[in-house]
Amino acid sequence: MAKFAVLFMAGGLLAAALLFHRAAATETESDGPQFTSDHQMLRPAHYREWVWLSSGFGMSYTEGSNSSPNFDNVFANPTAYRKFVATGQWPDKTVLVLELRHSESNGSINKGGHFQGDLNAVEVHVKDEQHFPGKWAFVGFGASAKSAKAIPTSANCYSCHQEHGAVDTTFVQFYPTLFPLAQQKNTVRQNY
Amino acid sequence: MAKFAVLFMAGGLLAAALLFHRAAATETESDGPQFTSDHQMLRPAHYREWVWLSSGFGMSYTEGSNSSPNFDNVFANPTAYRKFVATGQWPDKTVLVLELRHSESNGSINKGGHFQGDLNAVEVHVKDEQHFPGKWAFVGFGASAKSAKAIPTSANCYSCHQEHGAVDTTFVQFYPTLFPLAQQKNTVRQNY
Repeated sequence: MAKFAVLFMAGGLLAAALLFHRAAATETESDGPQFTSDHQMLRPAHYREWVWLSSGFGMSYTEGSNSSPNFDNVFANPTAYRKFVATGQWPDKTVLVLELRHSESNGSINKGGHFQGDLNAVEVHVKDEQHFPGKWAFVGFGASAKSAKAIPTSANCYSCHQEHGAVDTTFVQFYPTLFPLAQQKNTVRQNY
Repeated sequence: MAKFAVLFMAGGLLAAALLFHRAAATETESDGPQFTSDHQMLRPAHYREWVWLSSGFGMSYTEGSNSSPNFDNVFANPTAYRKFVATGQWPDKTVLVLELRHSESNGSINKGGHFQGDLNAVEVHVKDEQHFPGKWAFVGFGASAKSAKAIPTSANCYSCHQEHGAVDTTFVQFYPTLFPLAQQKNTVRQNY
């Protein structure tokens, strides 16, 4: 009977291990960055079901009026989000998606303000130490590109995020639920 | 040896069944509406990690300017979201959370437009046939209430949603990824 019990338990452990491995692998494969063999990043397929961080309206880094303001919506892959909540830091394989949408007014019963319309562009800020010497890269997918190469590091998005990103070159200062967490964890850098 | 193999497989199946049951129970319990014994709804604890549907800026149903526009952010519980994607309809136990946040300007490197600030209020539109004779109810939690009773059905939120909601008294016309799905599934009602 002892042998039976050991075998019974061994079968249970093996099944549990296989299931756990499958669940863990699925999560990692589904929400980390994916690349083609020629180092293009694949457009994240399911980012609308990731964790949304915040949306801005007509945001710009320069003064002056904006006659056709976009909404900007930011999403994080769930694996990276959970690690940020636990540590205040973005792990390797973080994917932050910036989705730009046109704004609309006076539709249906809406008489004031703005709601979101068609997709304008998708841009990604991705951390992947294996693929990028500077760890982080920006990738622009426009409205419909299925894959794209990283934007060259000479572009001013890199220097601006380096200079003004509150946490690890990212604009956590604009994410109202993550910023207090980063402050608690002491991961906000000085003078961003 | 045959007995050993049967026991080994039985152990595996039992472990798999226990794991599966645990995963399914967690999902169902975690994202449907929860009530106190005196029929107050509990404030949804983890809605910021649910599926975000859209955000508006300064939206109003009346004309005129708005000197302190809010952002309105809408989230759906994942179980209801997945059923809507599959069918174009909201199932029983749907919870739609409307989060209102103050808007901010000219913070950090931001020089134009608006980003999101402190929480103003949380309001819920919930479908629960067991708890509400009209299936759907509105519940207001303000900035911090842990539980609240449903708003009386004489309030104009009910009549307005009844009259203008594109799908089942909800404003799916303002959710840019769900509205085309509802149109495909023919669940948008006429003359909303």
